[in-house]
Amino acid sequence: MYRVGIIGGTGYTGSELSRLLCMHPEVELAALTSRQNAGRKVSDIHTFLKGYSDISFTEKISDTDGLDLVFVATPHGVAMDEVPKLIDSGVKAIDLSGDYRLRDVDRYSEWYGHGHTDPENLRDAVYGLPELFRGKIRGADLVANPGCYATSIILACAPLVGAGIVFDDIIADAKSGTSGAGMIPSPRLHHPFCGESVIPYSVGTHRHTPEVEEAVRMFSGTGIRVTMVPQLIPIVRGILSSCYMRLKKDISGEEVSAIYAKQYGGEHFVHYVEEPSIRAVVGSNHAHVSSNVIGDKVVAFGVLDNLVKGASGQAVQCMNLMLGIEETAGIDSPGLGV
Amino acid sequence: MYRVGIIGGTGYTGSELSRLLCMHPEVELAALTSRQNAGRKVSDIHTFLKGYSDISFTEKISDTDGLDLVFVATPHGVAMDEVPKLIDSGVKAIDLSGDYRLRDVDRYSEWYGHGHTDPENLRDAVYGLPELFRGKIRGADLVANPGCYATSIILACAPLVGAGIVFDDIIADAKSGTSGAGMIPSPRLHHPFCGESVIPYSVGTHRHTPEVEEAVRMFSGTGIRVTMVPQLIPIVRGILSSCYMRLKKDISGEEVSAIYAKQYGGEHFVHYVEEPSIRAVVGSNHAHVSSNVIGDKVVAFGVLDNLVKGASGQAVQCMNLMLGIEETAGIDSPGLGV
Amino acid sequence: MYRVGIIGGTGYTGSELSRLLCMHPEVELAALTSRQNAGRKVSDIHTFLKGYSDISFTEKISDTDGLDLVFVATPHGVAMDEVPKLIDSGVKAIDLSGDYRLRDVDRYSEWYGHGHTDPENLRDAVYGLPELFRGKIRGADLVANPGCYATSIILACAPLVGAGIVFDDIIADAKSGTSGAGMIPSPRLHHPFCGESVIPYSVGTHRHTPEVEEAVRMFSGTGIRVTMVPQLIPIVRGILSSCYMRLKKDISGEEVSAIYAKQYGGEHFVHYVEEPSIRAVVGSNHAHVSSNVIGDKVVAFGVLDNLVKGASGQAVQCMNLMLGIEETAGIDSPGLGV
Amino acid sequence: MYRVGIIGGTGYTGSELSRLLCMHPEVELAALTSRQNAGRKVSDIHTFLKGYSDISFTEKISDTDGLDLVFVATPHGVAMDEVPKLIDSGVKAIDLSGDYRLRDVDRYSEWYGHGHTDPENLRDAVYGLPELFRGKIRGADLVANPGCYATSIILACAPLVGAGIVFDDIIADAKSGTSGAGMIPSPRLHHPFCGESVIPYSVGTHRHTPEVEEAVRMFSGTGIRVTMVPQLIPIVRGILSSCYMRLKKDISGEEVSAIYAKQYGGEHFVHYVEEPSIRAVVGSNHAHVSSNVIGDKVVAFGVLDNLVKGASGQAVQCMNLMLGIEETAGIDSPGLGV
Repeated sequence: MYRVGIIGGTGYTGSELSRLLCMHPEVELAALTSRQNAGRKVSDIHTFLKGYSDISFTEKISDTDGLDLVFVATPHGVAMDEVPKLIDSGVKAIDLSGDYRLRDVDRYSEWYGHGHTDPENLRDAVYGLPELFRGKIRGADLVANPGCYATSIILACAPLVGAGIVFDDIIADAKSGTSGAGMIPSPRLHHPFCGESVIPYSVGTHRHTPEVEEAVRMFSGTGIRVTMVPQLIPIVRGILSSCYMRLKKDISGEEVSAIYAKQYGGEHFVHYVEEPSIRAVVGSNHAHVSSNVIGDKVVAFGVLDNLVKGASGQAVQCMNLMLGIEETAGIDSPGLGV
Repeated sequence: MYRVGIIGGTGYTGSELSRLLCMHPEVELAALTSRQNAGRKVSDIHTFLKGYSDISFTEKISDTDGLDLVFVATPHGVAMDEVPKLIDSGVKAIDLSGDYRLRDVDRYSEWYGHGHTDPENLRDAVYGLPELFRGKIRGADLVANPGCYATSIILACAPLVGAGIVFDDIIADAKSGTSGAGMIPSPRLHHPFCGESVIPYSVGTHRHTPEVEEAVRMFSGTGIRVTMVPQLIPIVRGILSSCYMRLKKDISGEEVSAIYAKQYGGEHFVHYVEEPSIRAVVGSNHAHVSSNVIGDKVVAFGVLDNLVKGASGQAVQCMNLMLGIEETAGIDSPGLGV
Repeated sequence: MYRVGIIGGTGYTGSELSRLLCMHPEVELAALTSRQNAGRKVSDIHTFLKGYSDISFTEKISDTDGLDLVFVATPHGVAMDEVPKLIDSGVKAIDLSGDYRLRDVDRYSEWYGHGHTDPENLRDAVYGLPELFRGKIRGADLVANPGCYATSIILACAPLVGAGIVFDDIIADAKSGTSGAGMIPSPRLHHPFCGESVIPYSVGTHRHTPEVEEAVRMFSGTGIRVTMVPQLIPIVRGILSSCYMRLKKDISGEEVSAIYAKQYGGEHFVHYVEEPSIRAVVGSNHAHVSSNVIGDKVVAFGVLDNLVKGASGQAVQCMNLMLGIEETAGIDSPGLGV
Repeated sequence: MYRVGIIGGTGYTGSELSRLLCMHPEVELAALTSRQNAGRKVSDIHTFLKGYSDISFTEKISDTDGLDLVFVATPHGVAMDEVPKLIDSGVKAIDLSGDYRLRDVDRYSEWYGHGHTDPENLRDAVYGLPELFRGKIRGADLVANPGCYATSIILACAPLVGAGIVFDDIIADAKSGTSGAGMIPSPRLHHPFCGESVIPYSVGTHRHTPEVEEAVRMFSGTGIRVTMVPQLIPIVRGILSSCYMRLKKDISGEEVSAIYAKQYGGEHFVHYVEEPSIRAVVGSNHAHVSSNVIGDKVVAFGVLDNLVKGASGQAVQCMNLMLGIEETAGIDSPGLGV
């Protein structure tokens, strides 16, 4: 059994990691940190873990924990303080924040509003989207786990950009459930405000924008520009991103489908489907991609559970690759369906 | 035109009051206070009022405002500081908090956790449920506007207690939309927590319990005990309270209906119906009451929009009575239906 | 008092018309038809009308009803059987279906899948979007009431197309509450299917597409192409359409705002706002328009209540114009806000 | 590997069974029937099963399928036609309908409105609630899988009735998500009708009522009467039943908790908790029970996912017992939590 830990085990991605890891056949969740809950049993805070976890939160990860890999599930800005310590101790790390997703420190400063204090590890970090970068993830010591919006958009757009059939100018109209915004109460997440509404926010300024641009360029060799408009919808889990691309030439819906089929045909977690469905993937690490050609455009939908394939499930998938375990171990279950 | 003001114009009940008053044919909303928004236009904060209100928030109500009546829409504990000043200045007041709803200062302390600092006005305050206490409200200088849960439960129970056909021991299983909890973000109101759940809270300890007991006793002359279990449901507006009473004797559903028909037959805002519906009353000052006899018990449903008949609409109804205006003025519109 | 009727009074738009008309100061709702409910009191079916309407459903509108204007709230295909009879009898008509929205019979056949049997009246029908075509509506005998999606998209796009600052190629990513789909149960509207999901449908093939294209061309003199993707979201009322346009030249967000301000500055029901909000307009005839410039693109949001400004409220607004009544009569109330 | 089949594989309980069984380590889902989908791949209909199931729907279960056990997931009335054939062929059966839940054919007729055609097997059927009747289920050839509401109410009430501390007269105010009503669209399940409301139905007449009474009597030896009021709430999955019982004597909350702790302390799937949570159990076979003493009453909450512990998960739990497999096999995962 490998031994893994989570720094930041109270928040939603930490909580979701603990849900997934407690069922993992080859990994033991050996440590979770939480400043506010240190000393309390994990299953007293995450009550859904009753019967699945006996450990307690600790203040910090300790060298004596003998961990093989640590998930950093803290806010951005904090993660880049934790990661160097882990890497220096020879512990593999997966960062679920945005701190290691952008290759360029200037671009990081521009989008995150503060400097990057760990440029060395930034240089070596691998973007953890297995369906596109599986090989690199296998050998990585540090993986930057993709953002939830970003994963949904990249999965929908990268194959067509890679095939060279669309122009470089992409519109991503992204709709997310509310759990993507984290566990801290705020006016925007207050139920009477968002519970029966659709709320655009960070219009054109969301931090997943440069991440999508970089990942698609890394994959395809083609630079793209993304216009991203995130919108909060009144569900808890799930993202549906509608991505609009202009076709370079006359091409049929079938030909477009064939490109996706070629890309994802062998994948266990990403499926090209006729009718994309949040309910079909919710609770699971699966994602749907779908597309329609409309005149000279194609709209491609990327659909996933923001807490699983959009965060903690994908992190476990990366962990499996990094530790040389079967890629699907611990996350091999279908979505709820209903 | 009468001139009225609102102390505490930012919160949900203040906001709802401004929505209703801006359409009132005989009343002008002349002043709204807000500590945090003082100086800003009301329609910049409550954007739905664009075109309906030109005034700005002020720090305080001023004597020079020349107000006939003031709504106090502050948290409990604060209201009892504001009300005496108004009454002393000869301004009528309607308090939407719980500060003047219980007749007894000891009972107030017991349920609200602090002493009552204005026992004089407490003695004269009238409980503002027009369908039961219309006469007293007409002559009142100070009205304690009922709680949202309380209104729904009292409307459902008072007629049967008054008719002497049920025992004094009532169970009220109450379900409320989230706007009843106010505008301050909190873990319980955080969408990812409550958006796809049903959440019991204040089980057996909710402050509307003694209020229901007192109001029903005042109306019927019979003391009752209420076991109240509030539960948050994932809608924004609306309450449905299921009230369980044991029948003293064998009585048919038709006979029970007849009691309600007699009580509410002449009412404009309270309707006895076969199928109670939140959607039929939402957005309006109307309430539904319905009942079913099941063996030796009756379950009575009280349904309303917690912000209108459960708060600000009922306050306007009381204001109309206190000022000698037509009771339905400004609030005479049907529910949304769909 | 003018006397008006509704053909098709059971469905959601008919129901909403009855809700609005029962409060109208200068119009009497004198007749509602319903095949299935003929003979039953309207308030027994639409229970929210208790106390607001005493009439009963009839099988048909009769000549002896002495009606000045009739709303046709039937499905498309049926409306074009009803409208000629009304026009021939000298009764003004407002059709809420799609039958009279497209000028060209061939285009109608193409999008609606059957021929048009009333080309004469089609020629004279006026598109009932008052903010753009107020003058023509005033003199019209037949108004084609715009679609809900269409209204939201046109309000957001027409001013910029009219100002000549955007290219003719528009993407409309439209999100609608479920009441827009009508009252007939179907798998897509089944709560377990749609209640916690976002569901794209009629991708690139929705019938409001040609309607938007025609209305914008009529208004601006410029032909446009619209790529429209409707998506069902789990709320009952409300539409938010995100419309993406490419700018012809470098232009600031302020300059774009100024165009909208010029167009809608004098309007009572359409407001240019910083933060568009479904809750601020829901239950009312108001609409929000908002915009953000992102690089060489602008995203404009059109927000409204699909049953009011998107259907029945707008129809009443048109009726007021057609009958020479104050345009805001009967629909002059703010949105719910919360 | 055991081989199992499902009669009625299209509906929600059949769909959920296929979701759970496709991950079961010791059971192979070898056959699913569906009249309407016969011949189509299961994963084309239940798209969440892509990658998990290769089989196709068949018209009927065949003797040559060599099945060890069959789940009957048809409507009541149909199940009692299927079960005898299975039992006669020596195939074990678990019926998810109501057909085998009531011991008495007259009581069945009274509540289900038609006669029972299979009284022999009815006599031998075992009520499939493992936490109360584990021993009998182990040896059973036919298990009547409990109703979703019934499970939530029985789990909350049976221990206190069994301990003899409450009177025999129980009120169950039950709230359910919409998936409990099945996949057939209907006016009550139409999103615009139920999506922002709480809807009481079958008040005092729901068929789970006699089932609760019988199961509690079987467990405790004490006859009880249940007043049950089901209410639809706008979530897809989840039930919270609030059960009100009168205490026979003065007893503390701690003493009540101790009774539950004794009953469920050793259980894997049923947990006594301080704060019951639908989200903590949703997607899983776990249930929460909680209680509060209020004066001379106790309110006990029973919480579960209606499709898992309330239907298909519990059926798999029973199957495990019947086949001599580890009871938790295939269903041993925590709830979603968020």
